[in-house]
Amino acid sequence: MAYPSPSRSGGPGTDGSRTVSSRLLALLDVFTAAQPQLTLSEISRLAGVPLSTAHRLLGELSAWGALERGADGRYRIGLKLWELGSLAPRGLPLREVALPLMEDLYEATHENVQLSVREGAAVVFVERICGRGAVPTLTRVGGRFAIHATGGGLVLLAHAPPEIQEQVLSETLQKFTRYTIDSPSKLRRVLAEVRLRGYALSDRQVTEDAFTVAAPIYGLSDEVVAALSLVVNHQGAEPAYLVPLVLSTARSISRLLGAPGSQHSEDARYLRN
Amino acid sequence: MAYPSPSRSGGPGTDGSRTVSSRLLALLDVFTAAQPQLTLSEISRLAGVPLSTAHRLLGELSAWGALERGADGRYRIGLKLWELGSLAPRGLPLREVALPLMEDLYEATHENVQLSVREGAAVVFVERICGRGAVPTLTRVGGRFAIHATGGGLVLLAHAPPEIQEQVLSETLQKFTRYTIDSPSKLRRVLAEVRLRGYALSDRQVTEDAFTVAAPIYGLSDEVVAALSLVVNHQGAEPAYLVPLVLSTARSISRLLGAPGSQHSEDARYLRN
Repeated sequence: MAYPSPSRSGGPGTDGSRTVSSRLLALLDVFTAAQPQLTLSEISRLAGVPLSTAHRLLGELSAWGALERGADGRYRIGLKLWELGSLAPRGLPLREVALPLMEDLYEATHENVQLSVREGAAVVFVERICGRGAVPTLTRVGGRFAIHATGGGLVLLAHAPPEIQEQVLSETLQKFTRYTIDSPSKLRRVLAEVRLRGYALSDRQVTEDAFTVAAPIYGLSDEVVAALSLVVNHQGAEPAYLVPLVLSTARSISRLLGAPGSQHSEDARYLRN
Repeated sequence: MAYPSPSRSGGPGTDGSRTVSSRLLALLDVFTAAQPQLTLSEISRLAGVPLSTAHRLLGELSAWGALERGADGRYRIGLKLWELGSLAPRGLPLREVALPLMEDLYEATHENVQLSVREGAAVVFVERICGRGAVPTLTRVGGRFAIHATGGGLVLLAHAPPEIQEQVLSETLQKFTRYTIDSPSKLRRVLAEVRLRGYALSDRQVTEDAFTVAAPIYGLSDEVVAALSLVVNHQGAEPAYLVPLVLSTARSISRLLGAPGSQHSEDARYLRN
């Protein structure tokens, strides 16, 4: 279940006022997880770029390596773009630091372990380790999801700038299950709790059987840069057992990222309760 | 140790004949693992794009999300590009299929497990699990390396189109250690052996202490789409024990990718010897 990207640049329309660069980027924008391979005419139509212009620009993008053509002639994202994307500090470098500790958490629990970051008002999953027998999840590495439903999303939203919080609170809160938070006042309360407690719980808010514990990961300037989540079956889920596990791993990752640790006193407070 | 990208588009030069799109792509091209954060003037100089043009195009790239600006004003690759790159069929989707089996191999050995694909005449590492106490390696996820030195590279080169093989054979073969293959005739012999045996060995050819066993991963059309490597300390490395481990995991990944299995008879031949 892909969550629509809110930051699509340009839209359909073939007015001559669009710059070449905006057209080039619009051509890339039409590729999604749901439609990763497209024909020339599909790309032209979806991007709102005339066929001849699209053909020429797709040629340039392919020569550079941003796109590749399959045996069937359809275009798809090329490895070059993946290589370039791997330089995004909030993508692979974060994940390279976090993965060994995520593996330790996985070994200890054999449950789903996920790492996510915020992009605007959406949550993007940067890494996940799926437990073989663990509860199924809907997330995908590189994929977006609604920020108000997932545990990681609640952590990231709780620590997002006020304007992002207000944006999410003012929009319709998509319902995934009957447990998904769909009222702004409830969401506001939950976000305050997340800040107070230092972790988030998402009980069957994305799928009917998943229970998530998520905790913030802090960066160099002590800002929240990511969220770590453990997703288990809601039946038999024991927060008292799961929360310290997630908090301790999130703290370890924060420490490796150079976060000043003294300001995470909420964690210690939880453990004293 | 990053291997220089052979597919850089454009070079320095500010002639007016370059198209807007080629300039836009040249601006992205200057970001590397060694220089992931750059100032406006650095980007302008490295890309050979006039400052004012660079400033305008960087603004467009930032608005779209391809780039982000840090607190220090420097540009870096944005998460949006990482998300888009994650759609490259040879990047994350391959890795999503392979990772669980790579984890099994890691659990069984606690050595380095790597997944690589070929991009032109270079090898690109798509995934790696590093054993904690295992021998250090020079690879990076999303990073390139010389195809003639690594075990995965030898597998990929052995199954590459003839023109790619001839290109590599005609270029200077960079030496990393005194064991790196540096003669075209030796390399030709090794590639023939790799095809015959169904796996590659790289004994201290990248670092003085690493021994690699690599095997091909086949895709839907029974073409080699990736290589799986196990990198261990060369001291005490036992090919007779390591080769079947790598071959069996590579076969399992090929099977999950839908490869017609009947044509991999080399594996069985090895096991009968």
